[in-house]
Amino acid sequence: MPKKVDHESRRQEISEALWRIASARGLDAASLRDVAAEAGISLGRLQHYFRTKDEMLLFTLRHINRLAEERIRHRIETLAQDLEGPPPPRLVLRECLAGMLPLDEHSRIGTLVGAAYFARAVHDEGLRTESREGIPLLRAFLADQLRQAVERGEVAPDRDPQDEAMLLISLVDGLTAYTLLDVQRPDEALRLLDRHLDRLFSGQG
Amino acid sequence: MPKKVDHESRRQEISEALWRIASARGLDAASLRDVAAEAGISLGRLQHYFRTKDEMLLFTLRHINRLAEERIRHRIETLAQDLEGPPPPRLVLRECLAGMLPLDEHSRIGTLVGAAYFARAVHDEGLRTESREGIPLLRAFLADQLRQAVERGEVAPDRDPQDEAMLLISLVDGLTAYTLLDVQRPDEALRLLDRHLDRLFSGQG
Repeated sequence: MPKKVDHESRRQEISEALWRIASARGLDAASLRDVAAEAGISLGRLQHYFRTKDEMLLFTLRHINRLAEERIRHRIETLAQDLEGPPPPRLVLRECLAGMLPLDEHSRIGTLVGAAYFARAVHDEGLRTESREGIPLLRAFLADQLRQAVERGEVAPDRDPQDEAMLLISLVDGLTAYTLLDVQRPDEALRLLDRHLDRLFSGQG
Repeated sequence: MPKKVDHESRRQEISEALWRIASARGLDAASLRDVAAEAGISLGRLQHYFRTKDEMLLFTLRHINRLAEERIRHRIETLAQDLEGPPPPRLVLRECLAGMLPLDEHSRIGTLVGAAYFARAVHDEGLRTESREGIPLLRAFLADQLRQAVERGEVAPDRDPQDEAMLLISLVDGLTAYTLLDVQRPDEALRLLDRHLDRLFSGQG
């Protein structure tokens, strides 16, 4: 295996150890030593791949987000095959947003790592940079789908795609938080998301 | 001062030390000893009032929420005086929801402590109980305002007040998170909230 690929796959193995800890008990008490133990390597070896907890957390978050993105893209491609053409914007948006909710074990772990990241990022300028890069990309993708929906007459023309995209992202974030806090069940969160989409796609102003 | 009141005010003083730490650098690394030092008392003295970090965090969160509630109630009462009668539901909802966003230093500190609480509560059944008690009360209050708005013809009758209340709570939670992460400015979060309220109060189905 080429050296670079090897380095990357070692980092992924370590980050999977981190996310097992993060999803089981959070990152508050987790040290680099704990993660090394979970990954079955020495602390020195781990520090060869990650110098700090935050560097490891950021890599882990990116890795999880990439996997989530791949799962969502795969579902949208499957939809396209079933429909024998590009799926309508509402279906694409729904797949994408539902994929961000903690509805199964995969996405639940992702959102738990996200919660650990959030609690640290509010006090860390470096970690916040990640959100400032990732969220605008997601927002632009959703806004583009909304723009297509407006063109198709499915969303009222006076709805601003950029605003509606950020409202959707915020809504899913809040629904995720209250699902993780056991205030509502996962299926209830999905039902509320659908309710919001019903209004957005009513075609009325 | 009676003994009970004294005990309560000592607990408040300690919890204010905790929230200074929580809002400045989060609770990840904060020990009971750190909080005792910030409050200017010994660790033994602190443990007379709080046995664990979580007990202290829960008391602090309740204390902050109570202060936020008082501020919001005061603003709604001022509105009622200015209008010489009960303010319309939309104004009440807007005051309440805007009061939950990190728009000023008070509410910013409250949401930062809330972020620290959230990261711990997702892994702690005892802390989650607090959300399961507090959120339904808030939801019931918002739903009652929405019911009045439906009766006044300001919100379409096919909108379910309970669902719309939970959508509003989730939305504000997400807008708060992305404001704390510097993805958007506080005034942008408020503008998006108003945009959502515009749609809700359009009177259309």
